[in-house]
Amino acid sequence: MKNSLKICSICLLATSIIAAAQVEPLVIQEQGSFAAGGTVITAPGQFDAKKPLDPAGQTYHGDHAAVLYQIPPHAHKYPIVMLHGAGQFSRTWESTPDGREGFQNLFLRRGFATYLVDQPRRGSAGRSTVESTLTPKPDEQLWFNQFRLGVWPTFFKGVQFAQDKEALNQYFRQMTPNTGPFDVNVISDALSAVVDKSGPAILFTHSQGGGPGWYTAMKNSKVKAIVAFEPGSGFVFPENELPPAMPSAFDTLKGEPVALDKFMALTKIPILIFYGDNIPDKPSAMPAQDSWRVRLAMARQWRDVVNKHGGDVQVIHLPEIGIKGNTHFPFSDLNNVQIADQVSQFLQQKHLQ
Amino acid sequence: MKNSLKICSICLLATSIIAAAQVEPLVIQEQGSFAAGGTVITAPGQFDAKKPLDPAGQTYHGDHAAVLYQIPPHAHKYPIVMLHGAGQFSRTWESTPDGREGFQNLFLRRGFATYLVDQPRRGSAGRSTVESTLTPKPDEQLWFNQFRLGVWPTFFKGVQFAQDKEALNQYFRQMTPNTGPFDVNVISDALSAVVDKSGPAILFTHSQGGGPGWYTAMKNSKVKAIVAFEPGSGFVFPENELPPAMPSAFDTLKGEPVALDKFMALTKIPILIFYGDNIPDKPSAMPAQDSWRVRLAMARQWRDVVNKHGGDVQVIHLPEIGIKGNTHFPFSDLNNVQIADQVSQFLQQKHLQ
Repeated sequence: MKNSLKICSICLLATSIIAAAQVEPLVIQEQGSFAAGGTVITAPGQFDAKKPLDPAGQTYHGDHAAVLYQIPPHAHKYPIVMLHGAGQFSRTWESTPDGREGFQNLFLRRGFATYLVDQPRRGSAGRSTVESTLTPKPDEQLWFNQFRLGVWPTFFKGVQFAQDKEALNQYFRQMTPNTGPFDVNVISDALSAVVDKSGPAILFTHSQGGGPGWYTAMKNSKVKAIVAFEPGSGFVFPENELPPAMPSAFDTLKGEPVALDKFMALTKIPILIFYGDNIPDKPSAMPAQDSWRVRLAMARQWRDVVNKHGGDVQVIHLPEIGIKGNTHFPFSDLNNVQIADQVSQFLQQKHLQ
Repeated sequence: MKNSLKICSICLLATSIIAAAQVEPLVIQEQGSFAAGGTVITAPGQFDAKKPLDPAGQTYHGDHAAVLYQIPPHAHKYPIVMLHGAGQFSRTWESTPDGREGFQNLFLRRGFATYLVDQPRRGSAGRSTVESTLTPKPDEQLWFNQFRLGVWPTFFKGVQFAQDKEALNQYFRQMTPNTGPFDVNVISDALSAVVDKSGPAILFTHSQGGGPGWYTAMKNSKVKAIVAFEPGSGFVFPENELPPAMPSAFDTLKGEPVALDKFMALTKIPILIFYGDNIPDKPSAMPAQDSWRVRLAMARQWRDVVNKHGGDVQVIHLPEIGIKGNTHFPFSDLNNVQIADQVSQFLQQKHLQ
């Protein structure tokens, strides 16, 4: 019975993917792109048009976010602003590595305007105000493990990732480097400017984007809810409620102290956090697995502190509700329609659509 | 009479912009993103999952192109692949600096599938196989002049650019740096992989993208036509037909020698080249203006050599056909619908739609 249900749900999933890909065109009332936020550097001196390569008196606009937006007809009240994680860019939310529709298309089809962000100093928003040297250091087996596809070169049994060579090729090529130092304030300032342009919005964040997401909500009350996929760092706590640092076989995870009055903004909005599968309960000698053990643990502590102050945070560890095999990218995993359904249920419950 | 015609065409233009922006939703049968081409570096040694930060045995996928594509229902036979110029990325073809529709939307509305490319080592395709240091050097007054908005801080009279502060802010922020050295072979290899994925295509190139465009057509017969906006370098000539170098107040422009049998590929497809306004006929002391004088001159010589070998190249210097005020970005200028009409006329004449 359990197996036939599984097969049935796989069939339904397959059918809905084929239906989406072949049948229904997307209808877009408006689409485009813009830069939001950022700063301007001006070199001292006087610009001379006859010495164009001399920076004297010239300006440099940098540290903005770059945004791709699409608005369907009769869109829901709140658009969804989507922020990628470490080493990633807007592609996170676009096509999946195996070529299916990502959350951009899925939520457009569900009637939401989407705003896909490249954070300052990443991808399309590459113009950093701080110098940086980019070195092509081979690191993809680290990511294969860290993103929990498996333990290189072996995929986890039942992992929600297409195990063909081209999917992995696309997956590795959906990375793009920082063009300047990661700076949570620079990013959250720019993201705040994005929601000023989009209007009051729901924020989806991924991984390293989790921190900038919390900071943006503390800066701008136009953030009306957050759905965070596997936040990996930047958990903010009131200064006197910092949890102990959490060592793992990968690194030591620390909470980040903020003033209580700022922190309280996070108690005013519904927040849903997802973690996927293959995260151990107990300490592991494998750095990749162990790093997620402490991150899930800190997310739960964070939930408890925010809720203690009157907040509305839920942490869904997907295997606990019977959804198995998810990697660090639940929104592009093979079962991403099922994950989108979980998100939609939350948005409905919270009257956000 | 002439003036009233002008006013009338301005009214029509304004009407068509308002109509496009307010009335017709875009219908997209399929949209997504992918990486094309590129190489893989592998560090010597054996990967150890317990030493994830050690590159030994790890891989690095880089030097691919990043592509955003949209396919309308019942699209024309050939999609349009669009390649940006120096310092730019896909944004070139998306929203204009003043927020109107760019060539992405305009040609979707005209029934073409569009493939917007970030070339290797730029924007979303930032993962370069060659190290690079990125320095935030103020240079925007150079670009204001070089892109022929005017002579900083004064706009040219009648320039087709919205003269408000936010348009200029967006314009400067639509730049993003190289994350590795510009390499015409790396770019044209990746662009060739894009047309392998898109299928036989029309190529639109801008500025520095002109060179990679010619090289791609020499590498891949799936390039069925090229529309080049203000190609700025990379003019290829048969080895024994190189024109003399052309010095200007900005730099010295040289043709690039290629074997005749490769060059001949460029004689097999229709090619249309546009240049805008405010390019002097005679040598000028202003580096920005003078650089475009020699580029237009070389484009004409190039046209003559390709056509002498049986080719079909046209150079349209827009003021000569009465279209005034265009900058280096005719496809996003205020009159970009008029420019799109010129392109459509060419595509119709050449039976490319």
